[in-house]
Amino acid sequence: MGLELDYLFHPKSIAVAGASEDPRKQGNAYYRLLKERGFKGAVYAVNPRGTDVLGGPSFTSVGEIPGPVDYVISTVPAPAVPGLIDECAAKGVKTIHLFTGRFSETGHEDAATLERDVLARAQRAGIRLIGPNGMGLHYAREGITFKDHLPADPGTAVAMAQSGGNAVEMVLGPAARGVRFGKVLSYGNGLDLNEADFLNYFAEDPETSVVGLYLEGVKEGRRFLDALRRVASEKPVVVWKGGRTAAGGRAVSSHTASLAGDSAIWNAAIRQAGAVPVSNMQEMVDAVSAFYFLPPFTGVRTAIAGGGGGRSVQSADVCEEAGLVVAPFPDSITAALRERDPEYWDWLSNPVDGSILGASPWKMDELVALLTKSPEYDLVINNIDEQWALDRPEAAQDLPKTLDALLAVHAQQPKPMAVVVGDAVQPQGWQTDALTDLRSRCAAAGVPTFPSIARAAQALKRVTDYYRHKEALE
Amino acid sequence: MGLELDYLFHPKSIAVAGASEDPRKQGNAYYRLLKERGFKGAVYAVNPRGTDVLGGPSFTSVGEIPGPVDYVISTVPAPAVPGLIDECAAKGVKTIHLFTGRFSETGHEDAATLERDVLARAQRAGIRLIGPNGMGLHYAREGITFKDHLPADPGTAVAMAQSGGNAVEMVLGPAARGVRFGKVLSYGNGLDLNEADFLNYFAEDPETSVVGLYLEGVKEGRRFLDALRRVASEKPVVVWKGGRTAAGGRAVSSHTASLAGDSAIWNAAIRQAGAVPVSNMQEMVDAVSAFYFLPPFTGVRTAIAGGGGGRSVQSADVCEEAGLVVAPFPDSITAALRERDPEYWDWLSNPVDGSILGASPWKMDELVALLTKSPEYDLVINNIDEQWALDRPEAAQDLPKTLDALLAVHAQQPKPMAVVVGDAVQPQGWQTDALTDLRSRCAAAGVPTFPSIARAAQALKRVTDYYRHKEALE
Repeated sequence: MGLELDYLFHPKSIAVAGASEDPRKQGNAYYRLLKERGFKGAVYAVNPRGTDVLGGPSFTSVGEIPGPVDYVISTVPAPAVPGLIDECAAKGVKTIHLFTGRFSETGHEDAATLERDVLARAQRAGIRLIGPNGMGLHYAREGITFKDHLPADPGTAVAMAQSGGNAVEMVLGPAARGVRFGKVLSYGNGLDLNEADFLNYFAEDPETSVVGLYLEGVKEGRRFLDALRRVASEKPVVVWKGGRTAAGGRAVSSHTASLAGDSAIWNAAIRQAGAVPVSNMQEMVDAVSAFYFLPPFTGVRTAIAGGGGGRSVQSADVCEEAGLVVAPFPDSITAALRERDPEYWDWLSNPVDGSILGASPWKMDELVALLTKSPEYDLVINNIDEQWALDRPEAAQDLPKTLDALLAVHAQQPKPMAVVVGDAVQPQGWQTDALTDLRSRCAAAGVPTFPSIARAAQALKRVTDYYRHKEALE
Repeated sequence: MGLELDYLFHPKSIAVAGASEDPRKQGNAYYRLLKERGFKGAVYAVNPRGTDVLGGPSFTSVGEIPGPVDYVISTVPAPAVPGLIDECAAKGVKTIHLFTGRFSETGHEDAATLERDVLARAQRAGIRLIGPNGMGLHYAREGITFKDHLPADPGTAVAMAQSGGNAVEMVLGPAARGVRFGKVLSYGNGLDLNEADFLNYFAEDPETSVVGLYLEGVKEGRRFLDALRRVASEKPVVVWKGGRTAAGGRAVSSHTASLAGDSAIWNAAIRQAGAVPVSNMQEMVDAVSAFYFLPPFTGVRTAIAGGGGGRSVQSADVCEEAGLVVAPFPDSITAALRERDPEYWDWLSNPVDGSILGASPWKMDELVALLTKSPEYDLVINNIDEQWALDRPEAAQDLPKTLDALLAVHAQQPKPMAVVVGDAVQPQGWQTDALTDLRSRCAAAGVPTFPSIARAAQALKRVTDYYRHKEALE
């Protein structure tokens, strides 16, 4: 039943109703982006004045377009939407994405009435609606997008959000760590197609490996939870419920006219469905990035390496507080350490303090190899001590060497591995570039990066929680 | 009693024992940095071979130096330290900073014995010790530092840490938001001078407005808490206790040989002393940045503006969950809104969704001025919707205009204000530059910035907690 919506992502022709000459208007951007990203089908501009858009002709109505039209993006004002739907019905349009807002989210009864009328007309015509009050679709493979800086190269992550702004941040945050998205959906008020429809689709979509969902409310509670359970049984799904507080609930109502509901109940229901609840943008970005790169694993015994003493103490504290276990070296490892380093073998511990290692014949990558091979550890976290190193330009050469040695260990003996590379703002361009380079190397090796050990710990624990729950059901 | 340590920061002459020709060695860096940063007093290089360092002569011992020497930085190996102390005693040296490590932190009894011998010799000679196993002093005003990228321009913040790595991150994180540090202390094992001594000094130091302290253990429990209480009664002091967990405690012992102790007891004691407990580097950076810029305030009624609907919902949720109160507009504000915007006045709410404002005659800065003037709000948080805007290069011009209008409101009607500017990694240099520019403008206006609304909310609540506790005692 899920894949029936696949046609949404594969329109043969798209018309932008409300296409504008003004480059600051979204009606201009939709049209321009389809051209720029190489959408293969026909693209039509529609505006009531029939003025040229981006040097090409436009049509005064959808009906006037010569060929067939599958998919219409509406940026026309709300009162013009019922007429547009009737036109689309006559034309045989299958899907309308309503970027158009100012419906029920205004809190005005006349706008809510208009919204109900829009739905009724679409349903009579068998047209499915995305929105209103949403940014619509991004589907890199077909050259469909809604914002210039959403990456054009596709991957297997999905972001779904009622909010357009959150959809963008849910993509750009992980993208900076090498995560790429296949499909992104900003569906606003969810008037017709809602979260349950999309989740059922993504449960079956073979192009999708992980789903991030930002939600303000649900239209059909039971159907939503069933759909969530279906996805979670197939692939990780991370759910951030907005409107958990009184003030958040009020904001939800003026944003997408959703009913917020009680926070504790929501998180319990999300967890019970086997999905992964998070509470803000940072947690969403971290969790999706972790799931994207990491294989399924359930063990929490964590080996940590790199950074000086202060970083080691912090790593141990925040990992254990997040529910990971930073266990001391097993005898097999201490015996190996002692053999090569009779002087300081007993000074070394988990986390491995890189500054102590300076006094030892053991090199960091050799020690990480030992930890990676050990059946006593389920995952390995490496701290790249970037803030310390970046005081001198040589770091741009030294840091990649250190990192590559660790990634080589991972390539030889795969075990869940994460790398902490700070994104603390750097005053100099070469420093920023050096960190970007480190993140790219990790992504190329299939290793997730996190901006702090605290955020890494929390995300990694969520990964184990998800797979433990899944395992318990199997 | 506190300011007696002021001489530590004002040596007339400094000798680096273990000064090296090798630019990768810290014994080279200390010497070079004193020259580069324009330390006004005499600087001497000491090494046993008497080889030239950085093109200048060196001395084979401290005793050989012709003039008086106040302050000695030791990078010699641990076994050479007792001899160095005796030399320094004969020379009349007042302070020795022992960068030298591998004492009690190794866990070896002979090294612990050596450490005790070092202390005894120093005490007999009336020499005070900083360290061992610490990076020492950074004091921008006198041109003293230990890392190249610690800013040379001074401010009124202080970072104190047993860990050198954490000291550096505690400075660089806030520095990226415009916070400048007067004094930074990395004091390692705290063998002689310890946290209590330094806190007593900073309590009275007129150059210091806020103190951040990373601590692994304390040498003198009661004296420490008394000193902490003294500082807290004068100025904000943020305390991050490392080694809260079993694994963290083990790491603490191999790092600075400190005794970790129970986490709940620690945090209760810190809070009871009127200081501000935090749990990791991000929280430390956020809290120090908040205290540095914000005036004392205790109210939690928060007005939030900027960003689209999703950001508004998130802002409301995370602020209320942090203990701030995101109260609806009072009647005085809704009346004013209605007068100028009869259509959408009742759609607007707190947080102010910038995309709704697009439909209103009210401009964002006008609305923020209304909120700033209202006695119903204690603080104002502005979301700069950078991720949304940065899809097109025009953002580099548009974002500063928007921000400057908000900062002008703040200049006219001071009320605690914070700005959220993401530091999510940007793929393009102009985007990073644009965000750096926004942060600089805020800092110049005395307004703190935070990388996420969740981190802003938590830090701002800590500011009110501190001043409430202080107020209750007065």
